[in-house]
Amino acid sequence: MTIKPPVDFADFHRLVASLPAGDEAAAAAATARDAVLTKPPGALGRLESLAVWLARWQGRARPRAESVKVAVFAGNHGIAAAGVSPFPATVTAQMVANFAAGGAAINALARGIGAELTVVPLELDRPTADFRDRPALDEGEFIAAVAAGFAVVTEGIDLLCIGEMGIGNTTAAAALCAGLFGGDAAGWVGPGTGATGPVLAAKIAAVETAAAFHRAATRDPLDLARRLGGRELAAMLGACLAARLARIPVVLDGYVTTAAVAPLALVTPGGLDHVVAGHCSAEPAHRRLLERLSLAPLLDLGMRLGEASGAALAAAVVKAAARTHDEMASFAEAGVDGKE
Amino acid sequence: MTIKPPVDFADFHRLVASLPAGDEAAAAAATARDAVLTKPPGALGRLESLAVWLARWQGRARPRAESVKVAVFAGNHGIAAAGVSPFPATVTAQMVANFAAGGAAINALARGIGAELTVVPLELDRPTADFRDRPALDEGEFIAAVAAGFAVVTEGIDLLCIGEMGIGNTTAAAALCAGLFGGDAAGWVGPGTGATGPVLAAKIAAVETAAAFHRAATRDPLDLARRLGGRELAAMLGACLAARLARIPVVLDGYVTTAAVAPLALVTPGGLDHVVAGHCSAEPAHRRLLERLSLAPLLDLGMRLGEASGAALAAAVVKAAARTHDEMASFAEAGVDGKE
Repeated sequence: MTIKPPVDFADFHRLVASLPAGDEAAAAAATARDAVLTKPPGALGRLESLAVWLARWQGRARPRAESVKVAVFAGNHGIAAAGVSPFPATVTAQMVANFAAGGAAINALARGIGAELTVVPLELDRPTADFRDRPALDEGEFIAAVAAGFAVVTEGIDLLCIGEMGIGNTTAAAALCAGLFGGDAAGWVGPGTGATGPVLAAKIAAVETAAAFHRAATRDPLDLARRLGGRELAAMLGACLAARLARIPVVLDGYVTTAAVAPLALVTPGGLDHVVAGHCSAEPAHRRLLERLSLAPLLDLGMRLGEASGAALAAAVVKAAARTHDEMASFAEAGVDGKE
Repeated sequence: MTIKPPVDFADFHRLVASLPAGDEAAAAAATARDAVLTKPPGALGRLESLAVWLARWQGRARPRAESVKVAVFAGNHGIAAAGVSPFPATVTAQMVANFAAGGAAINALARGIGAELTVVPLELDRPTADFRDRPALDEGEFIAAVAAGFAVVTEGIDLLCIGEMGIGNTTAAAALCAGLFGGDAAGWVGPGTGATGPVLAAKIAAVETAAAFHRAATRDPLDLARRLGGRELAAMLGACLAARLARIPVVLDGYVTTAAVAPLALVTPGGLDHVVAGHCSAEPAHRRLLERLSLAPLLDLGMRLGEASGAALAAAVVKAAARTHDEMASFAEAGVDGKE
């Protein structure tokens, strides 16, 4: 079973406008169970709210996080030709090969949590258009990338981690944020893989030009995702949407991933309620973006690699939340006295 | 092989005054390896410094964190009779039984990271003396508890997580911090398992009285540990010291654990350099204590359970640091282009 992807751009709008709500009965049952487990109330902190969140979005009173899938989407960007990254665009395909060979950080991290890793390269030999004066993708290309995201959402997954690889894509993320939220372009731009000096200046200039051009054309968040996002961002948006439809909670990676799914929150209130921010990236604009979306990151470890690395590491916390909730004894079962 | 524990209090002082340094050659080798792995420099953030830290304290250029031991020490406190906790002192032994039966949070968390869990109850039927007007432990009792901590440090451990259980022990931790660092007693006291109103007031009063009494007698951090700490705190201090001698890096749990090992830093500069703070507890004084000790916590998830729960969860991050460092390919191995 996979979730049927949208057939066209209008169908995509319809899907996003009618997202399913969480299962409040399952959430209430998990909250009630949490209250009798052998610990002072609240003493597991965020693990407790994560267990209830899992219950709500899985629709299960006893949530689980054993079957974790990590999906990494890779794309190339026309804007990379504008000198916005210290690395050449050839690195995108080379890193996809590194993922396939098992030698990247995400391979080690996915193995560490016993997760399935799926890498989806998206037409790497066909970069998106240079979005400074035209849309990065036409509607057909965008919907095809969204559908590639839907395809990773398969039966039996308890938790989906979403991340990306793509030289130039922090520029796309910054442009999308500037398009969605406005504000000073420079405030959405950071070093990415290490841009400084003229490379950073080129990045800021590209974001400024692109955001102004496309904000003049539309304020529709989904259309801005098509115009400014790139294929791997569209695929992450698709995967996040499909997970909502399939009752699979999602762990986001860093800045590019959060930017990619932000349109869901802007189009539909609560559109990201099935999502947790895995970490706060060292890319400075990520913290600002998370605050805009009211997402509280699980980890804050100065990571800024992408590849779903922060999401996979955070999945260990989510797994711990499900395990403690599922495996702990109650005060009555363990014969432990309560408060006097 | 276990590390020989101190035979008496003077011997304990001698051990703490002559801590071994880290292995800078191993640390340099790990730093050099990190620089060629397939990621932008610094992109794994804290994971990178953790790998180097592991290398330094394990004395291994290629550090590992596969064999993790979680040690939980349990003790009872005379001060509990002063009404400082909402839970009765019977809960300490009941929770030790819960650990043995596998039903506590730490059981689920230790299973989740594949760690060995060792629970060490310390004369639970002999609470420490009420430390408001006399030492909690005499020298013989203190050294016996320190030796119990040494005993958990056995051969083949890559990483040691330290935590505790003991009704009344956040009062002991607060008194020890007030004794070691001075300052307003109330600033070192928090709700613990949930103290409010008169229970919280009793806790503050007890800490004020005890700290004033023992600071008048001595400013020796190790003697304050004996006077204000309790058996599980002394055992954690012993385990932390033994780990330093055995080249085993340590992950600390929350407020009580950090307070217990703080004397090492006060007696010897760098005395806690082989230690990482697993998390920042919701117990408010923990953040202040971590700042005093210049320890940057790995996690900040609002947890305040003790039982080594925060340490065990943080160990997943340390394991990820070792795995990425060990398993990732270099740019040359993977055929990935570097910066242009």
